[in-house]
Amino acid sequence: MRLIGIDWGTSSFRAFRFAEDGSLLATHSAARGILTVEGGKFAEALQGEIGSWLDGSPLLLSGMIGSRQGWIEAPYCPAPAGADEIAAACIDLPGFSGHIVPGVSTVRPDVMRGEETQILGTGIQDGLICTPGTHSKWVRVVGGRIVDFATHMTGELYAVLRQHSILGRLMEGDGEDEGAFLAGVATAKADPALGRTLFTARSYGLFEKVPASGLASYLSGLLIGTEIASEPGDGPVYLIATPALTKRYQAGLSVFGRTAQSIDGADAAAKGLWAIGQRLYGREG
Amino acid sequence: MRLIGIDWGTSSFRAFRFAEDGSLLATHSAARGILTVEGGKFAEALQGEIGSWLDGSPLLLSGMIGSRQGWIEAPYCPAPAGADEIAAACIDLPGFSGHIVPGVSTVRPDVMRGEETQILGTGIQDGLICTPGTHSKWVRVVGGRIVDFATHMTGELYAVLRQHSILGRLMEGDGEDEGAFLAGVATAKADPALGRTLFTARSYGLFEKVPASGLASYLSGLLIGTEIASEPGDGPVYLIATPALTKRYQAGLSVFGRTAQSIDGADAAAKGLWAIGQRLYGREG
Repeated sequence: MRLIGIDWGTSSFRAFRFAEDGSLLATHSAARGILTVEGGKFAEALQGEIGSWLDGSPLLLSGMIGSRQGWIEAPYCPAPAGADEIAAACIDLPGFSGHIVPGVSTVRPDVMRGEETQILGTGIQDGLICTPGTHSKWVRVVGGRIVDFATHMTGELYAVLRQHSILGRLMEGDGEDEGAFLAGVATAKADPALGRTLFTARSYGLFEKVPASGLASYLSGLLIGTEIASEPGDGPVYLIATPALTKRYQAGLSVFGRTAQSIDGADAAAKGLWAIGQRLYGREG
Repeated sequence: MRLIGIDWGTSSFRAFRFAEDGSLLATHSAARGILTVEGGKFAEALQGEIGSWLDGSPLLLSGMIGSRQGWIEAPYCPAPAGADEIAAACIDLPGFSGHIVPGVSTVRPDVMRGEETQILGTGIQDGLICTPGTHSKWVRVVGGRIVDFATHMTGELYAVLRQHSILGRLMEGDGEDEGAFLAGVATAKADPALGRTLFTARSYGLFEKVPASGLASYLSGLLIGTEIASEPGDGPVYLIATPALTKRYQAGLSVFGRTAQSIDGADAAAKGLWAIGQRLYGREG
């Protein structure tokens, strides 16, 4: 089989063209997330990005493209979920030969879309995986299956507090201040009650314990530290993140005496799409 | 002595005219918080509100009027602080016979302005007092002195998340839904990690565990429940709040098997101003 895999999220579009042995023939990425596609014209957007690749190979799409705001809604696959369960829950892609990968849900309830494919692509059989970002996921994998996860609104909390709350008023700029960041992590380690510690991002400024130029880093450290404090574990944390976020989470984890291993997100997405594609199309090939 | 006491906060102005025995001759309140006073014209604003009262009696002002954004900054009195310490830390009011009451600070650091006067006015010698609102304070009083407190950004978190985060997008209206509120409190009781539980205000909506019209109440319950969970205590919680907030906190506390006693905030402010005024002016009278 050949395969075209697409990780289509809220803000980005990443496509992978696979050879029959699973090696990558080509990749393409663009700032063409589902939020940029108007009037439901996803087929047209797909043609515009990778029209030249379309040769009858099946298309496999993961991410928010399968949400209510995307092309067509793929109902969540309940955890525990591995490649077999997720492949069995894929739905047909309208108008093309191919499928949309569902997200995964827990009974909490909690939901993910896109991360499940990356997680399968890591090949990790047992471990704790973190995908930091607007909505960070902390995912527990046992026997190669996603058994549980929790979403932390860390990135979004940072953004709304930075822009819209009283905390932002004392802050000057968003420059990196490692000392201030680590001070925020330390506050979270000493007291995991975020509602109560958040105000220190103001009082530390009022008392000049942290300079105004470092208060944004302090808030970031406080939020990331609180996230780490509420997801205990023994082994390394596998991080699927941008280099900047990987650096912050590594620094935060080290305050808790924990280690991290960095995993490339695009590579994980490609491998996950291939793994699911093999189950859907491999036996026919 | 006679006394004019003013609780002058960010958004409101409340004045009390005391007779020589401490009884109230008159009260006046207006939506004339310090944020509505332009160009630092606090003396003019005061004249405009209670000019007819000014008869040479000393003026005693508490609240954000003593902050950097107010009339003149009164440095914080460090906890532990009772009426004696706070009275000793009052500063002269420029251009009038009178003083500004300082706020109180902790080593955390944390700060309050205005609440310390209300707390003195409650007459509580030992107990846990909560002043819910934009920035809720949970205050521990021992031997009539404020020994420690923590600020929870509950009200502000609610507002910024309701208006600016993805959580608000699924919400329809801000009507009271008691069942949804209690569901939010229960989530917080089961898991005090706010960063992780916040996302349930979205996932509960996605899975229709809470109707869209109840999601705002759910978020309120989640935030208030998290606040309560992180401030344990045995005795009753003394609440200084509006009737609507008192009702919510009472309902939330009962989920934790705790009781509450309601205290009128204006009455507490008046009594606190009188108690401090007695120490400043009583011996001269």
